[in-house]
Amino acid sequence: MPLTHFDSQGQAHMVDVSGKAVTDRVAVATGYIKMAQETLDLISEGGAKKGDVLGVARLAGIMGAKKTPDLIPLCHPLPVTKIAVELSLDPDLPGVRIEATVKTSGQTGVEMEALTAVSTAALTVYDMTKAVDKGMEIGGIRVLLKDGGKSGRYEAK
Amino acid sequence: MPLTHFDSQGQAHMVDVSGKAVTDRVAVATGYIKMAQETLDLISEGGAKKGDVLGVARLAGIMGAKKTPDLIPLCHPLPVTKIAVELSLDPDLPGVRIEATVKTSGQTGVEMEALTAVSTAALTVYDMTKAVDKGMEIGGIRVLLKDGGKSGRYEAK
Amino acid sequence: MPLTHFDSQGQAHMVDVSGKAVTDRVAVATGYIKMAQETLDLISEGGAKKGDVLGVARLAGIMGAKKTPDLIPLCHPLPVTKIAVELSLDPDLPGVRIEATVKTSGQTGVEMEALTAVSTAALTVYDMTKAVDKGMEIGGIRVLLKDGGKSGRYEAK
Amino acid sequence: MPLTHFDSQGQAHMVDVSGKAVTDRVAVATGYIKMAQETLDLISEGGAKKGDVLGVARLAGIMGAKKTPDLIPLCHPLPVTKIAVELSLDPDLPGVRIEATVKTSGQTGVEMEALTAVSTAALTVYDMTKAVDKGMEIGGIRVLLKDGGKSGRYEAK
Amino acid sequence: MPLTHFDSQGQAHMVDVSGKAVTDRVAVATGYIKMAQETLDLISEGGAKKGDVLGVARLAGIMGAKKTPDLIPLCHPLPVTKIAVELSLDPDLPGVRIEATVKTSGQTGVEMEALTAVSTAALTVYDMTKAVDKGMEIGGIRVLLKDGGKSGRYEAK
Amino acid sequence: MPLTHFDSQGQAHMVDVSGKAVTDRVAVATGYIKMAQETLDLISEGGAKKGDVLGVARLAGIMGAKKTPDLIPLCHPLPVTKIAVELSLDPDLPGVRIEATVKTSGQTGVEMEALTAVSTAALTVYDMTKAVDKGMEIGGIRVLLKDGGKSGRYEAK
Repeated sequence: MPLTHFDSQGQAHMVDVSGKAVTDRVAVATGYIKMAQETLDLISEGGAKKGDVLGVARLAGIMGAKKTPDLIPLCHPLPVTKIAVELSLDPDLPGVRIEATVKTSGQTGVEMEALTAVSTAALTVYDMTKAVDKGMEIGGIRVLLKDGGKSGRYEAK
Repeated sequence: MPLTHFDSQGQAHMVDVSGKAVTDRVAVATGYIKMAQETLDLISEGGAKKGDVLGVARLAGIMGAKKTPDLIPLCHPLPVTKIAVELSLDPDLPGVRIEATVKTSGQTGVEMEALTAVSTAALTVYDMTKAVDKGMEIGGIRVLLKDGGKSGRYEAK
Repeated sequence: MPLTHFDSQGQAHMVDVSGKAVTDRVAVATGYIKMAQETLDLISEGGAKKGDVLGVARLAGIMGAKKTPDLIPLCHPLPVTKIAVELSLDPDLPGVRIEATVKTSGQTGVEMEALTAVSTAALTVYDMTKAVDKGMEIGGIRVLLKDGGKSGRYEAK
Repeated sequence: MPLTHFDSQGQAHMVDVSGKAVTDRVAVATGYIKMAQETLDLISEGGAKKGDVLGVARLAGIMGAKKTPDLIPLCHPLPVTKIAVELSLDPDLPGVRIEATVKTSGQTGVEMEALTAVSTAALTVYDMTKAVDKGMEIGGIRVLLKDGGKSGRYEAK
Repeated sequence: MPLTHFDSQGQAHMVDVSGKAVTDRVAVATGYIKMAQETLDLISEGGAKKGDVLGVARLAGIMGAKKTPDLIPLCHPLPVTKIAVELSLDPDLPGVRIEATVKTSGQTGVEMEALTAVSTAALTVYDMTKAVDKGMEIGGIRVLLKDGGKSGRYEAK
Repeated sequence: MPLTHFDSQGQAHMVDVSGKAVTDRVAVATGYIKMAQETLDLISEGGAKKGDVLGVARLAGIMGAKKTPDLIPLCHPLPVTKIAVELSLDPDLPGVRIEATVKTSGQTGVEMEALTAVSTAALTVYDMTKAVDKGMEIGGIRVLLKDGGKSGRYEAK
């Protein structure tokens, strides 16, 4: 099976989707950033009164999703119709879990937008807490759900 | 210890670095994208003749690093002087390992640029191979080295 | 009545417009920049032979409107179909009056695009004349007309 | 006195600042958005529990300031070293007052960055509350303080 | 015959295309960069083992096409559905020939996107080889084919 | 002689300029767009009263130069200190001749910025006149002068 982002000579190109139907599409992606317990405590207190790390990261994730076609070279630009990014504290990690949902009516899917939202939100959490914890690690970034379009529904196991 | 991206009322702001010295700074970040063995094989063959996934991802990582202050809300813009992104196939993962090195002469560090390079390169690998493998997972994104500036040298254990 | 840009937990999100109809939409916004009489005279002469402040500001307004989804965090990206920006000298102000008209066929309105066009044009007038007048003031930025879509026609009183 | 953004033939150009000294520069700008009392009440409650309009607008202002050279055609790009945006509720307006402070070490001033921060924050407040109030008006956008560089200190009266 | 990008007073505006039908559109543009024979030889060897100039330029062309509405002031933003950029070595020039094909379903054509792809790819070849050859020249940038939309099919002679 | 944008394995990277001195740099580039005599006449009249094609293209060139590091993958971001773009009608071509001058104090040259300014201005002339002339051709884009930095002065013959 060939990779669709290359033509028959192996040259990268943006896949032609002009013949594909405009359908409603949705994608959900997830990921996390793992940190020291003390860092998580700081974020947790901050949400209450010292500064809202998760609020800033949520917004960065939403804005990051809109920049997806600027960042991913062969990604199609498309007008997304919804972006939501949820961040929650997970004391077991310990760290922050992120989930992004993106919708569009278009000719191609939005999983790259959802993944970019998660990734940008995680990087923003790193940026805002790096003064106290340089050892944080971002991981678990993957697609949970993708629906709409010819290839059908995908759900991660 | 307070988070530096918030002022005394807990409002997010871009930290004042105008009093900091201009010094040479370097940061190295790493990460990976894990995939099915078949997907790795496709990428591996492609490098030879069917299409260069790693070459596209490397370039996306370099260009992504330049967009860091657009993506990370409280990140300072600064003129980077070097960006290098290495991608290598790791059959044990199986998947692709990514390492980014960024340098600048400036008043603040470049670890966010290095992390953004890694993250964008990983997302690009996902984009280019998602037609054959939707279950890939991006992880292990962290700072390996940061040097220059007042806070001194940091090396990940 | 709740603010639509927040979900039930008060978290900011980009509103889901995927269920809304694609309709023709138009918005008109206005604003002004007030200045010293001497500054207005300079702009007025310039239009004739020394340099076209209004022409530069008009173009900045048009290009600014296209950047609206980059600037306004929860604003939907959409392909605008028309942007016009009018600037006129008002000796009674004294200053420059600005009016912007934006159209689209889409699932959400374009008043933010029209307001951003006015605001960017006004800032550009400031930039081009600030060497002679630092006391200029931008004001009166508001929506004059919004039509198309479910919420119906709005006209400012 | 000629306008500096035009050459001797009246053609727009970006002023040559290569001969100017690199000095510490600061600018403070202000502005407001006037609204119905009910709208202000909604924002005020939201800050507590239903959604943080001011927090989103503050971030938009900070990110908007970084986009200034993209928006204002003849504005020089420069690496800002600090951006802070304060928003406060003013029941007498009624509405929201905005103040932005920007610093750099560079060859040209940052008043356009401060004005763009105020303007973007005000537009974002409009965007987030427009579902309940279309008659809001943005105004009073002006420079309060500018210091550093050859032209000396300017303070608004 | 008037120029459509100006209104009846000669003011630049973005043409209103809201009344135009959404149709499938395609444009093909071409161009070249002429260089010393030694430079061409270096690129030619590089494709094999020392570094892929054409691969980087191809990607830059694809990404450049997506930035067209940011670059060309009165150009409409539209979601392109395909971008392909071909680069080939021409020993007779000597130099590199570039051809770009862009498609969309929209209300306006994509020849500016195709021309921008060619132009950006050519500039990238210049950037990557300028250390060895400063005398290169970019030329022959023109539209070969434009189809779809009311004005019908255009083919260059 | 190797191409500097590739490392010893032939991988593209952004060249390390951190060891280079900050010096004053200037670059001048040129180019033209050739058109039918009737098209040139329309532009010529427009400058007087029907719409200022050259003014719009000049501004697009200036703004395009600022986007150079976004467009050219391995180009360093740097704060330019001057951009000027001259356009003149050449009845012998017939067409429009373009010359761009860019300055900076930095660690790397600005010829890519000057070339991008010329290229963007030419594309903008095409965009604004394409309704009457699809056969226009952009050419002659090359560096006239480059000075400052270790490689010394370059003047085109």
